[in-house]
Amino acid sequence: MQQYSPYPQYSQSLIRNKQGRRNMGSFFMSESLKQDIVHQKQLLYMTLDPNDPRIKNIPPMLNKYHSLYPLDQDGAKENQGKMFGYVTSVYKAICTQDGLPYAIRRIEGFRLSSEYALQAAESWRNLQHPNIVSLKEIFVSKEFGDNTLFFTYDYFPGSETIESKFLSQPNQTSFQPISESVLWSFITQLVSALKTIHSLGLVCRVIHPSKILLTGKNRIRLNGVGIFDVVNYDSPRNLAQFQHEDLLLLGRLILTLACRSAASITAQNLSNSIEYVSNTYSKDLYNLIVYLLTKPVINLPNIDEVVTMISGRLLQENNYLHTYTDDLETELGKEYENGRLFRLVTKLGFINERPLYDMDPRWSETGDRYLIKLFRDYIFHQVYDDGTPVLDFYHVVETLNKLDCGVDEKILLMSRDEQSLLVVSYKDLKKCIELAFSELVSQKSHLN
Amino acid sequence: MQQYSPYPQYSQSLIRNKQGRRNMGSFFMSESLKQDIVHQKQLLYMTLDPNDPRIKNIPPMLNKYHSLYPLDQDGAKENQGKMFGYVTSVYKAICTQDGLPYAIRRIEGFRLSSEYALQAAESWRNLQHPNIVSLKEIFVSKEFGDNTLFFTYDYFPGSETIESKFLSQPNQTSFQPISESVLWSFITQLVSALKTIHSLGLVCRVIHPSKILLTGKNRIRLNGVGIFDVVNYDSPRNLAQFQHEDLLLLGRLILTLACRSAASITAQNLSNSIEYVSNTYSKDLYNLIVYLLTKPVINLPNIDEVVTMISGRLLQENNYLHTYTDDLETELGKEYENGRLFRLVTKLGFINERPLYDMDPRWSETGDRYLIKLFRDYIFHQVYDDGTPVLDFYHVVETLNKLDCGVDEKILLMSRDEQSLLVVSYKDLKKCIELAFSELVSQKSHLN
Repeated sequence: MQQYSPYPQYSQSLIRNKQGRRNMGSFFMSESLKQDIVHQKQLLYMTLDPNDPRIKNIPPMLNKYHSLYPLDQDGAKENQGKMFGYVTSVYKAICTQDGLPYAIRRIEGFRLSSEYALQAAESWRNLQHPNIVSLKEIFVSKEFGDNTLFFTYDYFPGSETIESKFLSQPNQTSFQPISESVLWSFITQLVSALKTIHSLGLVCRVIHPSKILLTGKNRIRLNGVGIFDVVNYDSPRNLAQFQHEDLLLLGRLILTLACRSAASITAQNLSNSIEYVSNTYSKDLYNLIVYLLTKPVINLPNIDEVVTMISGRLLQENNYLHTYTDDLETELGKEYENGRLFRLVTKLGFINERPLYDMDPRWSETGDRYLIKLFRDYIFHQVYDDGTPVLDFYHVVETLNKLDCGVDEKILLMSRDEQSLLVVSYKDLKKCIELAFSELVSQKSHLN
Repeated sequence: MQQYSPYPQYSQSLIRNKQGRRNMGSFFMSESLKQDIVHQKQLLYMTLDPNDPRIKNIPPMLNKYHSLYPLDQDGAKENQGKMFGYVTSVYKAICTQDGLPYAIRRIEGFRLSSEYALQAAESWRNLQHPNIVSLKEIFVSKEFGDNTLFFTYDYFPGSETIESKFLSQPNQTSFQPISESVLWSFITQLVSALKTIHSLGLVCRVIHPSKILLTGKNRIRLNGVGIFDVVNYDSPRNLAQFQHEDLLLLGRLILTLACRSAASITAQNLSNSIEYVSNTYSKDLYNLIVYLLTKPVINLPNIDEVVTMISGRLLQENNYLHTYTDDLETELGKEYENGRLFRLVTKLGFINERPLYDMDPRWSETGDRYLIKLFRDYIFHQVYDDGTPVLDFYHVVETLNKLDCGVDEKILLMSRDEQSLLVVSYKDLKKCIELAFSELVSQKSHLN
């Protein structure tokens, strides 16, 4: 069971170093997690440069959305129209109502025949699933010139399609098969989405590498749901047949990923591809692909049978996810401390060295606030015997923690002229600082 | 699929308030999550009061562990010895090697017959599973007077047994059945643990409400693994028979929890209990319990069949876990800022108001460091027109963020006597502060 986990592993064990001190990494979240978060935050509010040539084709406002930013890659245009029968383009935009970013897909050249067509996608709007990009709303607007249909979805900064991640290899030398545990993770996520979709009497139809988003490390979400329901509203539909087609699409997708080649599912390559899978991956994976791709003799295969087939893998996925949540909880435990300490230091910043206190006798050497000043020196301005400054992050954290708890431990504070010494407990310091701060606060409310 | 999730739901949506400002809750992790973390951290390093009467029975040092703290509840003694045939007690203790807390279980009165008995538990020491409390080591010590056997496990602060959580009801009026989604979550977790255990050719034998820990909201872990292997080392064992007994124990446990009564599995109550389940819960749950408790006619039931039976529930559990990880990632996205800002404020603390600088002309009104002083006032010491202090946390965060990025934006700094004004960009401030800090650092290395 000690397979490589498809999910990130951030937390290092909290082993101490030789001096018995915690590693710096045990105070802050791991660097890789931080990088992920920073990158996503940057993308979240990215806007077009006013000098960008694309800006002249983009309206300043679309329905209730502003700050449109094109998300399509440059090379993506060539495949346009293959999926839905219409050219589509995607923009990030900020909603004026809640201030949050969304992804808006524009269906170019589609003429809405009736309002009923929009209602065909209504079921999708109420669907919440961790592996489906939620459809928020559908609207028609003339802002791009013609009368166009727009689909608003949740936006996932930094996401990438499975196609661009695994199927567009510039140099074939770097070809690496996707590890089996990652493939099974993808399968469990897609099967989970399909199970929900089929249970609601819906059909997915977008199980294609270009419509599956990687929204985190090996976390995938089906994208573009509901578009077919509107665009093909007038076509006759056979639910059982379409649902079976979803399973066929799933089988093709798995085979494509296992071979890392979009050409693996063409008629002339199919048998070679399946042989490659049987040589490279487990019997389980081979069996699943064959089950999904084989023409049914009597009954159509259905998603419930697939769920039963992969039950052992679902169990494994649960284990990975539990371990991942443990990891995230550990990281949160570290960062929560920082929030607390940051607020405490901010409080000290508000209190210390206020110009108003320059002449206040309570802050002079005989006043009761004097020790806050000395304590500030104790935290930040200590020096070693040879006069070099103590720049010890651990000392700051430890001191602030003891202050926050108000422990009984006593420390020795020395005046700057080294002429007077004060012995005081953290408990008393805490009281003193809280009093000083609450006076600041009430000073405010008093004069307001 | 919109069932109540058995896992916590912390994150609120990031809706802005009327002024377009983010809620305080969007800066820091949610209050309930914080409370959980604070509570766990407090328990992690709890020590016995020197005046506590229990301290006279506890050695100061046990093997390589110190600061022993008894974890047994007062009332727990009466059931002692029922599980393993020996009275046991549990202590939290800190390991001198890594400084981390562990839970140590003492087996009173057991005489180790041979060293081989200890090796019987060796497989457990290498077992990592998200639903099993890891066994770290086994040792013999005389510190408690007699020659006793000790088992060291991972420690989970704030954990509680299933027994004390769900089966010890002081007042029967507050009786509430456990929701079906929570029950299935427990089942998937236990089945996952059992699957791993049985795959390794091991037997669990501790599937009992008193040996299952709740280590988070509805997150469970099997506790006390490996003890039977050592204590019953001399008894003959039949693996298939014991593994089937694990399934029987699982069935009894589920029935006990569904009825919330330890008496539900006695011979005279059994049929009533099963009828209660069939009236209260789904057909699936009823079928599983009957499958586990029924005497097999031909083949013994095995864990793989159970995994297949509950595959749909495993899928559901995956969804809950994915949603929970989304939630935790959102919380982390908020808190990650804190570590960065805390480090920045600490840096400012090191630099500002150092006694050494009192006479330094560079920090005087004509020096190049003077603006750091004024910037400190700008962050913390601003006042409104009526003289009341600005105690605006948002202002501090925003200013520090701009400083950290070194943006081009210029601000107006005013001297304390309001006689001179300085216009300076965050970019220049950042440069100036970095220079001041690096001088502090090099001052250190120079003299060392």
